[in-house]
Amino acid sequence: MIDKLAQHIRKIVDLSANEEAELSDFFDVRTFDKKEKMLEAGSRCNDHFFIVEGCARMFFVNSKGVEHTVQFAIENWWITDYSVFGRHVTTDFFIQGIERTEVLVINFQRQEELYRRMPKIERYFRLIYQRAYAASQFRTKYLFGYSKEQIYRHFNDAFPDFTGRVPQHLLASYLNMTPEYLSEIKNKVDLNPD
Amino acid sequence: MIDKLAQHIRKIVDLSANEEAELSDFFDVRTFDKKEKMLEAGSRCNDHFFIVEGCARMFFVNSKGVEHTVQFAIENWWITDYSVFGRHVTTDFFIQGIERTEVLVINFQRQEELYRRMPKIERYFRLIYQRAYAASQFRTKYLFGYSKEQIYRHFNDAFPDFTGRVPQHLLASYLNMTPEYLSEIKNKVDLNPD
Repeated sequence: MIDKLAQHIRKIVDLSANEEAELSDFFDVRTFDKKEKMLEAGSRCNDHFFIVEGCARMFFVNSKGVEHTVQFAIENWWITDYSVFGRHVTTDFFIQGIERTEVLVINFQRQEELYRRMPKIERYFRLIYQRAYAASQFRTKYLFGYSKEQIYRHFNDAFPDFTGRVPQHLLASYLNMTPEYLSEIKNKVDLNPD
Repeated sequence: MIDKLAQHIRKIVDLSANEEAELSDFFDVRTFDKKEKMLEAGSRCNDHFFIVEGCARMFFVNSKGVEHTVQFAIENWWITDYSVFGRHVTTDFFIQGIERTEVLVINFQRQEELYRRMPKIERYFRLIYQRAYAASQFRTKYLFGYSKEQIYRHFNDAFPDFTGRVPQHLLASYLNMTPEYLSEIKNKVDLNPD
């Protein structure tokens, strides 16, 4: 399992075979069933997840009891609630496998220890967070500046695997539209793919 | 000017007087007038701005010609379009001082050189980007899960200096409401501050 993460890290920094072995001591391997919770609202958030295989989503439940999906994570993505990760406050989010999902888990204290032992890992996470933040700036632009059809077309172009893989009511929630409206748009886009 | 940045860096990593002097070689000092553009849509984005004094906003113009403010930055904040920073593609965003704004500027190539010369700066930016991403996760939750009044109350509690300092039509754009609606909400919140 650690080889998947090592491959991902090597796209950014060098990593020797010894360092890969050392890295594996910092992580636990876990498998979550479909719908099983990796993080629960109301609890502390001390774990950082790297998706090896499968797909997870992060969501919260608003005051009316409605679930809102704010993020998906597929293979090679990291996910946690960064606002409270490692802090003495509880999260408002759930993270849940939407299919059977294998992850590597590192907790906050071990991640800090990893930075001390292998400073090059700071560079890796500096780039991971920079890209995550960039994606969120980009998403904000779409949410504010484009029609729902344009948002769906963009999402479908950028992540073609996603739109088929993710249950449609969850995709609708992520795109902030009703499942019925998403279905209408999908039909329209299928007929006019340009 | 560099002492402001050095102070900010020292909250995260140690920095000697020599390192502070070395750091200053990597940055240019610039002052932007109110409304002057620091970045223009359609151009390459090669600069990263640290606000020493003043306030800037990042916005884009949608297909109907309407400006949408997606981010503000005040003292000690970093701002650029991270999706294209240092890349051979053009930005869709503008960055503009909304008052006279003094900044430290580092370009992409010099920032990469700075990481090589002072690896501890990776840790600093790793934390800067982690926090920026955390703030954006938090903001997504608010945008989807709360009423416009709750969003304003949260924003006002979290950034009390901001709501007085920023022109109201820009704040309205950031909060995705009309200036009239923002004014209504402000009056209501002033009467019922709890």
